[in-house]
Amino acid sequence: MSDSQLAWSKSEFEARLRAKGDRYHIHHPFNIKMRNGELSRKQIQGWVINRFYYQIIIPQKDAAIMANISDRETRRRWVQRILDHDGHGDNEGGIEAWTRLGEAVGIPRDELWSLRHVQPAVKFAVDAYLNFARTASWQEAVCSSLTEMFAPAIHKQRLANWPTDYPWVAPEGLEYFRSRINLAERDVEHGLEVTLQHFTTRAQQERALEILQFKLDVLWCMSDAINLAYAAG
Amino acid sequence: MSDSQLAWSKSEFEARLRAKGDRYHIHHPFNIKMRNGELSRKQIQGWVINRFYYQIIIPQKDAAIMANISDRETRRRWVQRILDHDGHGDNEGGIEAWTRLGEAVGIPRDELWSLRHVQPAVKFAVDAYLNFARTASWQEAVCSSLTEMFAPAIHKQRLANWPTDYPWVAPEGLEYFRSRINLAERDVEHGLEVTLQHFTTRAQQERALEILQFKLDVLWCMSDAINLAYAAG
Repeated sequence: MSDSQLAWSKSEFEARLRAKGDRYHIHHPFNIKMRNGELSRKQIQGWVINRFYYQIIIPQKDAAIMANISDRETRRRWVQRILDHDGHGDNEGGIEAWTRLGEAVGIPRDELWSLRHVQPAVKFAVDAYLNFARTASWQEAVCSSLTEMFAPAIHKQRLANWPTDYPWVAPEGLEYFRSRINLAERDVEHGLEVTLQHFTTRAQQERALEILQFKLDVLWCMSDAINLAYAAG
Repeated sequence: MSDSQLAWSKSEFEARLRAKGDRYHIHHPFNIKMRNGELSRKQIQGWVINRFYYQIIIPQKDAAIMANISDRETRRRWVQRILDHDGHGDNEGGIEAWTRLGEAVGIPRDELWSLRHVQPAVKFAVDAYLNFARTASWQEAVCSSLTEMFAPAIHKQRLANWPTDYPWVAPEGLEYFRSRINLAERDVEHGLEVTLQHFTTRAQQERALEILQFKLDVLWCMSDAINLAYAAG
């Protein structure tokens, strides 16, 4: 990493960010089992319970980013993520949609919200993400959110195979996956705009790739912990 | 301050919080001059320019509080403050309303937004408030926002005397003061609910009074700095 190297063009930089998709947890052994219809009811439930901890931290993460944004126009765009996830007005929001996914796989709302089956390693990984959002510059935190580039593919995968591989899951439970596809695309547009504009020297661009890798590690470690607790060996 | 002393009842505690109003900047020499119609155009402008720095920090302060709130329902109430201030959808928001106040007193939008005439001591005071919101528990940060209890009186004072004492101010510029009266009352209701419920031992209640005093000090120091720069001597 050196400032003496030429910066990548924006399109080359974006291509390198997107190439990080080969480290996305869509390739994790636990997700491959999920995609192949090999998970038991208990394993699906364990995944839903543990991913919920990630879901509920997202608005705090987005508020932490907003707390570091001095530009009103940028805040006005960013707050939409909080409204989407916590719900606002008629929109019940992503956390509620995940709660319905929980009910659809047989987890009562209170049990899900109690967080009592969340694995410590899942908490550590998710809390590391929140802590990064609090302490990094807002542009770095935005960059870390770019794993959303890879999210539509994983949501589409679930929408495609769950109805046949896990027919015991009530179909309305899949609404969370459906709702996130468009929202992820909109969020990526803003996130990429910020990242391509902010990280301009070669050293900064390489730093952006490291930040994205950090966030990929958060998601991968969550899958490791879930796999270990429910599906390994 | 001791835990061995009996906690105040909620009504006694609230009365002690409200009694802090005698330290509100409504009693500051600069505000008394403003109320008495004794300020020049330049002094009114200096006040609007410097208070703007407070206005633009408010949504970051509220986002910092939200970043520490793990309860979704509380966040869903709190986010309204950000929407009110940054604007959302059809609502142009408080920062824009203050910008119109600026125009009404003769400060072009770009000059106001440049922040170049903001006094360093004003920045230090306001930044201390933001830093408190970032690092304190969210309930302590909410408590610090309770100076809103005293805000409707100061807004009403301005609405009453500006049209006669400062007739050169375009009347639509006063909309900010008008809009804040109802919003302040709603915000105080929530803030008091949190504070009365969270600070329950005598030591905690006395801490709450200290926190409120800290926020009163922020506002008072801003007035000191503005007075010193534009109206002292």
